[in-house]
Amino acid sequence: QTLRALFQYKPQNIDELMINAGDFIYVDPTQQSDVSEGWVIGTSHRTGCRGFLPENYTERANESDTWVKHREYVFERPSRFFTQTENEPNVKLHREIHNLSMSRNVTNVLSLQNATLRRGVLVMRHGERVDQVFGKSWLQQCLTEDGKYYRADLNFPSTLPKRKDSVKQFEYDPPLSCCGIFQSRLIGEALLDQEVTVSYAYSSPALRCIQTAQHVLQGLKLDQKVKIRVEPGLFEWTKWEASRVIPDFMTVTELVEASYKIDLSYRGNFPPSSLVPSESYEEYISRSSEVIKQIIAACTSKGVILIVGHGSSLASFTRPLIGLPARDSSNFAQVVRKIPSLGMCYCEEIKEENKWQMVNPPVKTLTHGANAAFNWRNGIVED
Amino acid sequence: QTLRALFQYKPQNIDELMINAGDFIYVDPTQQSDVSEGWVIGTSHRTGCRGFLPENYTERANESDTWVKHREYVFERPSRFFTQTENEPNVKLHREIHNLSMSRNVTNVLSLQNATLRRGVLVMRHGERVDQVFGKSWLQQCLTEDGKYYRADLNFPSTLPKRKDSVKQFEYDPPLSCCGIFQSRLIGEALLDQEVTVSYAYSSPALRCIQTAQHVLQGLKLDQKVKIRVEPGLFEWTKWEASRVIPDFMTVTELVEASYKIDLSYRGNFPPSSLVPSESYEEYISRSSEVIKQIIAACTSKGVILIVGHGSSLASFTRPLIGLPARDSSNFAQVVRKIPSLGMCYCEEIKEENKWQMVNPPVKTLTHGANAAFNWRNGIVED
Repeated sequence: QTLRALFQYKPQNIDELMINAGDFIYVDPTQQSDVSEGWVIGTSHRTGCRGFLPENYTERANESDTWVKHREYVFERPSRFFTQTENEPNVKLHREIHNLSMSRNVTNVLSLQNATLRRGVLVMRHGERVDQVFGKSWLQQCLTEDGKYYRADLNFPSTLPKRKDSVKQFEYDPPLSCCGIFQSRLIGEALLDQEVTVSYAYSSPALRCIQTAQHVLQGLKLDQKVKIRVEPGLFEWTKWEASRVIPDFMTVTELVEASYKIDLSYRGNFPPSSLVPSESYEEYISRSSEVIKQIIAACTSKGVILIVGHGSSLASFTRPLIGLPARDSSNFAQVVRKIPSLGMCYCEEIKEENKWQMVNPPVKTLTHGANAAFNWRNGIVED
Repeated sequence: QTLRALFQYKPQNIDELMINAGDFIYVDPTQQSDVSEGWVIGTSHRTGCRGFLPENYTERANESDTWVKHREYVFERPSRFFTQTENEPNVKLHREIHNLSMSRNVTNVLSLQNATLRRGVLVMRHGERVDQVFGKSWLQQCLTEDGKYYRADLNFPSTLPKRKDSVKQFEYDPPLSCCGIFQSRLIGEALLDQEVTVSYAYSSPALRCIQTAQHVLQGLKLDQKVKIRVEPGLFEWTKWEASRVIPDFMTVTELVEASYKIDLSYRGNFPPSSLVPSESYEEYISRSSEVIKQIIAACTSKGVILIVGHGSSLASFTRPLIGLPARDSSNFAQVVRKIPSLGMCYCEEIKEENKWQMVNPPVKTLTHGANAAFNWRNGIVED
């Protein structure tokens, strides 16, 4: 079995393997018995060295990849996405022609565009949340003795939105970090670059998801046009809520006051009160397939339906759509844990209506490193 | 000895300790003999659990911190920086008064401001560089077969600046990643929030440093006013250049054409040709103290001198300034390795001229997590 390194790993122990993004690593399944969970023993094709490496830094390489090293093989390319690689001049040309035509005959061009567009569903996880970086006690770190919020690290948002109940509620419904905002913006801008037409935007009621949707739409320059539909049915598997209760989400009115662009006319398919605390896997799976069915039925226009949810959303909203049974519950948590911020998957409608297939998302992945806090006393002044 | 966790670490092995940012960890120095480099065995004050933890996720806790848990103790507070914590209303008040006075008598206010300002030196490391995330082969990953650049991951910059010699030169002089740009912007905006007056900006000739300076100045809204002085003498210890040669830096003309705001009238103290490949530690230290001396002598106006350099710059440009001898060369690399992107330290002139002290930087640290690449095939579709 051959793995492909998704990004760099620098050994932290003598028995670990240095890998660079793109490296191929040969792994013998018979030798993995004594290895700790999450680690594998492998041999690097590039260096010939052998050692432990973290499995989640890699993906399974395709057979063909082992001989077309360092070159990506695109399995299907959705017809309307231009990959900047080969087509950059064409994209520009296309835009110019498009603008020219627009001024000549708007109606014709629009109807033409509409005819070539299919429906698509883009499911993405929210961006980096503050508690992911600063732990469960993040809010404690940011409150003065008289309960006022301040920014204890520059990755905390500069302010928290106003909510009528206690600021403590953010503990169960944490906001994005500044890095999470950056990630969401970048994805939105990349979608704009690829000329992806987003026609609808749905979000889980969790604040981090609404913020992600907002910043993706801002990156797309669509935030004034496509309003966010807050759908409680998109919330994550409630069994995973540490508090064992459903968080008190911010109300739609509070969100609008905090200048989020919310679709006020939208009535959720699942009211917040219908969410069952600590629901079983079967309950979660059935809610997920129900909500995606209702969203697809409601969105009849062509273009992409953006759904911002949680790590669990990627599998549970798309598998019913492409006709796959639910994943086995036993390894569901393990799979979900690997899904990064803004991790996404994309389904496209096949010509016959209501048949869907999963294809490459319209934009590339987003890979970046961590940044540690730093105290100038240790290291700079002291020896 | 007590350590303080700087950020969260989730165990990846059964023998590791879960730590959250702010946790205190008791470490017995006599028990560290069998531990791999970079790891320590400790006991968490919060959970009572014991296990291995990565040392660079922690800092040495001050004695006093062990009894004033979760509350930061500020050692010195530079008089003119307002900490948003307690003083936010005051800052606003200050701004309003300031604006009022400005309209009444500009000259008086300016001279008053000038009188209360001291000189400061803010030394910072550049932001995240692409090879830090994607490894040495990053450029290979981004070149098509006919040598054109494309963005293989969204953290690669959307374009590379034009340079007359080969694009291959970027391999030895890599640009910032998009995340590095985000980090630099955020720091600039935070400096603006704290009303820090930057009067001069110096940068190492490495592209990543010039880009960092540019984005920090943009965040400060000073990029049209304070031009970047490219000083080859600020380049890092040349012994650490993997290529064993001095990179061919982009010329000032090329930088200006790529719309970097460069001070064209500035003549560096050390021309690029004076940089010695694989210089000794003594040569590096003597170059560093020489260049900081010349910068201080040239910058007679009040306000902050921004210096964007490398991890090594933080110690080697400030220690001569505050009258400390050079660090021991034996642990220099280890200390430098811990300095994060945009890690910074700050020196302020004491009233008697040319005496400097190191104080807290005007802005907080920036801590964020990593983001892994993600392939929808593994996990979403396949079991």
